[in-house]
Amino acid sequence: MQKITLLINCPDRKGIVTTITQFILERQGNIVYLDQHVDRQEGIFFMRVESEFDQEEFSIADFEMQFIAQFVDDYQLTYQLFDAYYKPRLALFVSKYDHCLYDLLGRYASGELPVEIPLIISNHPDLEIVAKRFEIPFKHIAVTKATKAAAEAEQIAAIKEHQIDLIVLARYMQIISDEFVAQFKNKIINIHHSFLPAFIGAKPYHAAFERGVKIIGATSHYVTADLDEGPIIEQEIVRVSHVHSVQDFILKGRDLEKIVLARAIKAHVEHKVLVFGNKTVIFS
Amino acid sequence: MQKITLLINCPDRKGIVTTITQFILERQGNIVYLDQHVDRQEGIFFMRVESEFDQEEFSIADFEMQFIAQFVDDYQLTYQLFDAYYKPRLALFVSKYDHCLYDLLGRYASGELPVEIPLIISNHPDLEIVAKRFEIPFKHIAVTKATKAAAEAEQIAAIKEHQIDLIVLARYMQIISDEFVAQFKNKIINIHHSFLPAFIGAKPYHAAFERGVKIIGATSHYVTADLDEGPIIEQEIVRVSHVHSVQDFILKGRDLEKIVLARAIKAHVEHKVLVFGNKTVIFS
Amino acid sequence: MQKITLLINCPDRKGIVTTITQFILERQGNIVYLDQHVDRQEGIFFMRVESEFDQEEFSIADFEMQFIAQFVDDYQLTYQLFDAYYKPRLALFVSKYDHCLYDLLGRYASGELPVEIPLIISNHPDLEIVAKRFEIPFKHIAVTKATKAAAEAEQIAAIKEHQIDLIVLARYMQIISDEFVAQFKNKIINIHHSFLPAFIGAKPYHAAFERGVKIIGATSHYVTADLDEGPIIEQEIVRVSHVHSVQDFILKGRDLEKIVLARAIKAHVEHKVLVFGNKTVIFS
Amino acid sequence: MQKITLLINCPDRKGIVTTITQFILERQGNIVYLDQHVDRQEGIFFMRVESEFDQEEFSIADFEMQFIAQFVDDYQLTYQLFDAYYKPRLALFVSKYDHCLYDLLGRYASGELPVEIPLIISNHPDLEIVAKRFEIPFKHIAVTKATKAAAEAEQIAAIKEHQIDLIVLARYMQIISDEFVAQFKNKIINIHHSFLPAFIGAKPYHAAFERGVKIIGATSHYVTADLDEGPIIEQEIVRVSHVHSVQDFILKGRDLEKIVLARAIKAHVEHKVLVFGNKTVIFS
Repeated sequence: MQKITLLINCPDRKGIVTTITQFILERQGNIVYLDQHVDRQEGIFFMRVESEFDQEEFSIADFEMQFIAQFVDDYQLTYQLFDAYYKPRLALFVSKYDHCLYDLLGRYASGELPVEIPLIISNHPDLEIVAKRFEIPFKHIAVTKATKAAAEAEQIAAIKEHQIDLIVLARYMQIISDEFVAQFKNKIINIHHSFLPAFIGAKPYHAAFERGVKIIGATSHYVTADLDEGPIIEQEIVRVSHVHSVQDFILKGRDLEKIVLARAIKAHVEHKVLVFGNKTVIFS
Repeated sequence: MQKITLLINCPDRKGIVTTITQFILERQGNIVYLDQHVDRQEGIFFMRVESEFDQEEFSIADFEMQFIAQFVDDYQLTYQLFDAYYKPRLALFVSKYDHCLYDLLGRYASGELPVEIPLIISNHPDLEIVAKRFEIPFKHIAVTKATKAAAEAEQIAAIKEHQIDLIVLARYMQIISDEFVAQFKNKIINIHHSFLPAFIGAKPYHAAFERGVKIIGATSHYVTADLDEGPIIEQEIVRVSHVHSVQDFILKGRDLEKIVLARAIKAHVEHKVLVFGNKTVIFS
Repeated sequence: MQKITLLINCPDRKGIVTTITQFILERQGNIVYLDQHVDRQEGIFFMRVESEFDQEEFSIADFEMQFIAQFVDDYQLTYQLFDAYYKPRLALFVSKYDHCLYDLLGRYASGELPVEIPLIISNHPDLEIVAKRFEIPFKHIAVTKATKAAAEAEQIAAIKEHQIDLIVLARYMQIISDEFVAQFKNKIINIHHSFLPAFIGAKPYHAAFERGVKIIGATSHYVTADLDEGPIIEQEIVRVSHVHSVQDFILKGRDLEKIVLARAIKAHVEHKVLVFGNKTVIFS
Repeated sequence: MQKITLLINCPDRKGIVTTITQFILERQGNIVYLDQHVDRQEGIFFMRVESEFDQEEFSIADFEMQFIAQFVDDYQLTYQLFDAYYKPRLALFVSKYDHCLYDLLGRYASGELPVEIPLIISNHPDLEIVAKRFEIPFKHIAVTKATKAAAEAEQIAAIKEHQIDLIVLARYMQIISDEFVAQFKNKIINIHHSFLPAFIGAKPYHAAFERGVKIIGATSHYVTADLDEGPIIEQEIVRVSHVHSVQDFILKGRDLEKIVLARAIKAHVEHKVLVFGNKTVIFS
């Protein structure tokens, strides 16, 4: 059996669900999941469909060609098509904080994440010990102002060599250049340690503490050229009070960061996230 | 323009989304909402569709007749069809607690709930003053063991007279007889002041306090013959701690009860709840 | 029996708990609640104490005089002392939105709030009907750019006449002048319909929608000269998703606003809030 | 500098805060944390105090002796006294589920938990690989009905050998005998994968799924002779819906279990938990 996941968006029009499900049905597909959403303000139709195909001779490539021929031009349709059994390959970028790294590798080792993690890249050598514990290749690429371009070239080479599908900034403390970002559109997920758009930039826990908020948060988002402004995938919060110091905020925030990042990765690799403009549609 | 909402469930089979959306399309319907869910364990297909029809001559009755003819037998399909512009008529049953009543009437007066409330029934006279403030007819029907059957007959007569679509037990402190319940299947919503199935029965806040829980909850559910065992519509929780007395639990619980009951009513009257077995599918 | 609540802050020093509790003990007080907090970064000691006095001849005024004599200068101590049985008098300021007003009046009518509400002021006549339902005096004071100073003078006169202790801006859609604010320091509570400091200013739900956040919030705070920058008392959030329109955000936000405002009022009138700098200590 | 943490409970009486803080003050202690709670229903006073002592000659043992002499009999006082700089020693009990184990060891490796973990015990050999990755001694002690008594004897020997202060059942799938439990009163923490007291016993996620709840939870508690009935330390919840299968419940529950167990351990080892009857007082 083969299984494909389709993510679609196009201008809304009558009968589109019928037509697309009919297309799958004609190819003997069994629709096991379908969710659609219409943004009525923008007039845009969004859909996620999972279909199973039992016939031996089914070819995803053929399906895709025929799908393009029938829909892409006629419906001004944008699509992504995934082999549901393929495991996306992740590169984790880290610096010195280890909590997100331990969390992701623990989940990976537990079989909780349907991915491969063939590469960890860091601008510091400190976390090599963690990578070793989980037997994952670790690449230390130092980054300074002077070497930034060369370092990013080296990072990109490693990413290509390992055929990476998704880059995860797991508390990576370097700003990625616009050129780097442009090569991996909607393929870099960052965890920001605040409830965006509150406390953009550095030291958000300190800023939250100064402001005297009663709730702190964390936000995972795709990385775009504008720092901390990319499409939000997931957010979560936890209550704080006057008894908590900045250190307590940071400590409580660790759990938020771990969970929010893990949820975002999970949604992405299960092809449940569709980016449109600067927002995301997250299918259930 | 007319607008209908369809709630459907039937054994799952290939092509069902296509066929039903095709049926609507052929009648010039514009699907403005579609959500479907397949319970793969049970092999059941669930769908909610909202469709708009612009043509003057469109008849909901005709649509329904044709829908029945094409689907009900052939697909072993159960359906509910609603005129989306009709406002369901609610009867509120209360006793002495007034917080849910104030909350619902405030929402009603604010235009937040797309309903009519032509009737409040109580086994005590105390809350007549609240009904009067909001200019809603109030019927005091005392209930004792001896008079229960007669009282329920009187309640049912009032419900029929006012063409009630949904009965809301807004902290009504009487157990409804099985005969009463049987007449209004999935048409009676209760608010239970605990996180069901924990603390079934009377005095759940006291029981929660005794157990030393760190979170309390409230649950709205359809009323069935089994006390507190009906299909759950909505639940919500709030944290408590050792500093809180039973009275604090009760006070904190009031807000839970109000919100959980209001959400359940809203979901029901917007036709987003589909009961299957002893569970609910809640469409978004 | 008499009961007093003390809120204290001063530079931290050894033995302060002992000394203050000793002071109460010597006056035959029974401490029924004590919570203290030390801000170790700033070196400030905070305490809330509730004490009961059984003796007939106990005088709060005498207690206060002696307390001042012993502590204020020597400890550079700032204090607030309340008769715990006195019910604070509230003025509600509203405009056209009625949900917070209905919520607060419902709670008031239910006996949930230990306050008196002798006055509702609005810059629009629309909500007089709500005030009438609950039999609360309603004062319509129109506000235009030209009449603002006169209108505020009229508001202040009404506030003084009714001996108001706390002003609640229950979705009052006018900016209060600095002169007004200066007269009621830490005595004006506002509800802002966002998770501050995100989305300061007007139309926060629209801004949140545009940003594509996954969680929206509401914030109650004391009003200071800086718009939406005052000390935060309480915040709460609710999840949203791509299926929700701006209208859905607004509707979901209503429940947040009601609860967050009610919690803030409750904390204030129970003397559980101590403002220090631009932050609050909220005792349990 | 030395630092001690005192946990106290006794029948409430006038002046107790004064007397105890005076006692500390007389020994030149600097109180850096004090929280007290009076259970007015039971008439019990609870307090947690952290005090620092600068003088070289300060002896915790002497302090304790004097404290006993002054308070224990006279006040019918129960106390626990801890050297705040001592790191409690944990034994983790596991079976085959690895998520809580990875989570705890990740936190431990990150320096997030102020403990030592010198021992992992399992009734299965499967997780030895995890223990090895983190270089923690792993002891496989098989348990069958026939060998249970012997196995527990072996466990207890290992616990004593490693001077264990706290036993953590991190999804350990064996019931502990009453005899075992009796030896470690309030020293065994379990994580139960439901929102207790809902779904006591085996397969709670399946039971929750069958009941159609909208929220699932996890509960950490001290282990007592009554299964799943011990004093609750912490609970947390997450929302579920009809789209989630039992497998989804289990997967979502993993994150709950990890967080709830970690929070409970943290509270315990920081001496913030006081057990009284079958409930806990959790200081902030």
